[in-house]
Amino acid sequence: MSTITVIGAGVMASSLSFPAMENGNEMRLTGTPLDREIIESVKDNRYHPTLKRTLPEGVKAYQIEELDAALDGCDAVILGVSSFGVDWFIENALAKIPDKIPVIAVTKGVEVYDDGTIQTFPELFESKVENGKSHEFCAIGGPCRCYELADHDDTRVAFCGRNMEVLKFFKKLLERDYYHIDLTQDVAGLEIAVALKNAYALGVSLGIGLEEKQQKYMCNTQSALFGQSSYEIMKYVQYMGGNVENSIHGIGDLYVTVMGGRSKEIGKRLGAGMPYDKAMEELKGVTLESVVIAKRAAKAIRILSENGKVRKEDYPLILHIDDILQHGSMLDIPWKKFQVTE
Amino acid sequence: MSTITVIGAGVMASSLSFPAMENGNEMRLTGTPLDREIIESVKDNRYHPTLKRTLPEGVKAYQIEELDAALDGCDAVILGVSSFGVDWFIENALAKIPDKIPVIAVTKGVEVYDDGTIQTFPELFESKVENGKSHEFCAIGGPCRCYELADHDDTRVAFCGRNMEVLKFFKKLLERDYYHIDLTQDVAGLEIAVALKNAYALGVSLGIGLEEKQQKYMCNTQSALFGQSSYEIMKYVQYMGGNVENSIHGIGDLYVTVMGGRSKEIGKRLGAGMPYDKAMEELKGVTLESVVIAKRAAKAIRILSENGKVRKEDYPLILHIDDILQHGSMLDIPWKKFQVTE
Repeated sequence: MSTITVIGAGVMASSLSFPAMENGNEMRLTGTPLDREIIESVKDNRYHPTLKRTLPEGVKAYQIEELDAALDGCDAVILGVSSFGVDWFIENALAKIPDKIPVIAVTKGVEVYDDGTIQTFPELFESKVENGKSHEFCAIGGPCRCYELADHDDTRVAFCGRNMEVLKFFKKLLERDYYHIDLTQDVAGLEIAVALKNAYALGVSLGIGLEEKQQKYMCNTQSALFGQSSYEIMKYVQYMGGNVENSIHGIGDLYVTVMGGRSKEIGKRLGAGMPYDKAMEELKGVTLESVVIAKRAAKAIRILSENGKVRKEDYPLILHIDDILQHGSMLDIPWKKFQVTE
Repeated sequence: MSTITVIGAGVMASSLSFPAMENGNEMRLTGTPLDREIIESVKDNRYHPTLKRTLPEGVKAYQIEELDAALDGCDAVILGVSSFGVDWFIENALAKIPDKIPVIAVTKGVEVYDDGTIQTFPELFESKVENGKSHEFCAIGGPCRCYELADHDDTRVAFCGRNMEVLKFFKKLLERDYYHIDLTQDVAGLEIAVALKNAYALGVSLGIGLEEKQQKYMCNTQSALFGQSSYEIMKYVQYMGGNVENSIHGIGDLYVTVMGGRSKEIGKRLGAGMPYDKAMEELKGVTLESVVIAKRAAKAIRILSENGKVRKEDYPLILHIDDILQHGSMLDIPWKKFQVTE
């Protein structure tokens, strides 16, 4: 039995309390300042109001002021913030994690710097560790709707990190007969693939929007966008020095997002012809994550292609998505630019 | 303007009459013995009864007895038979095609021999040409529902063949502002990827069947099967010496098939627990193509892995599909065998 402290009580990390507690671990769910009501509710009766599920018996809940107590004596940390909570985590929580305790993040995304450097979150976190401490930073990627995980539906994800022993430790903590876990040391490949899926979900869902606007099936158009998305994910993974086959975690994740995720909502509206401002207003920021990663991924391609490090021609869809976001409404899909290079 | 003779008046090849005729070509649609009623109808009023569309003005229709006239003076042949019509084509039509006339096939599938050799249809056709004649054999792959192509919805496919000049000729004949065409000399990669999609559509749709049986969303399960399918397609393409990136035409094709194709019907029923015999009875053979390719693809893996040419561990899903077909009903999905190898 191990003690796992979760930082960030959103739906994704909270759903991990099911496999974690069923494996006999202690689970300490700690909220960020944004999770105050969630933690109150879990403390009260274990009900998670956004996951809409009662968490397993024995789960402990902590408000952010109780973080030190939540971390005291823990064996592992699960980071549950979204990409918008990364800076908050670095500034407010990272330094409190006891030395040598490994961290696994559900957070999807990458940082992109002005010289085109792409940094995964595990790398970012590592660069921010101070006071001579060290942690192995791992991450979770792959298609996983939290509701289905909480309901024990078969789910397959991948854990990445540099240290295979630490990955095996995390797998032992969380693996169940319904929660299936690949392990990979290809951090760059897995992280870029699953980060990009939010951007490309926007791209594929342009086709869903076109379909709804025209009120007929347009499977060919959607599939073509799905195929091109898969291509650009594979190209990106290879640019990052990753194993091209780890693209499948991004491709599977793209599939689940287009089927049942939130990131398609913005693309669907844009595809149907709605101006960007109006779409964002309707969505009240809910899908901002896909917009951020699309802009970042396109920015990196623009810089890297200028420096001769990638071929712009290999990424017409992400550049097109970025063009739409900059232009403020739908533009013609650049079909003639889609071509697998030999 | 070129004269294009189509052999096999099924829905897919017939839908190509739209781009072909809009580009100013002459289109001679020739039926197999199974297409007699279709050809009668097209001769009568251009209505294609299975495509459920009126074909473009000027399209000419020929019964099989008129094949010589249909081929007389033609510049190109489109082979429109399904994989079940391949033997018929070789025995009854191939020798009639004038020398040097290039052929492009919409047929999806591969031959598998008892030593595990996998042969694409363009290779098979080439091996059957006699009397000192020669043809460049090309093929079309990628996500394309014929109804949507006929309705001018944006569609992206790939044409493969060994000779780039011939590929460019076919592209010139058929490219339209809604029909987008990649060209590739990677025949093995494209052909195996798009052949396999019918097999894996059966695999992914097991998840759809599970979902319908349990009457709840199971996006995680479906996505995991989709990701594993993408992985095995990539592995297969690489084994065939193809460009792994051409997997995207199979992946996109898998997406369209799971969304709106016929090949999912058998997998859906098996996934929901229906015995194979009953499922086939309900479907009256309509999806047999996916069953045939699944069996062939699994057979090749079993032989090739015994000979040390592939790792069985890389193909657990196709072997599982084959196990189900042999067993006659659904078996537990081998989740623990799914793992991307480094």
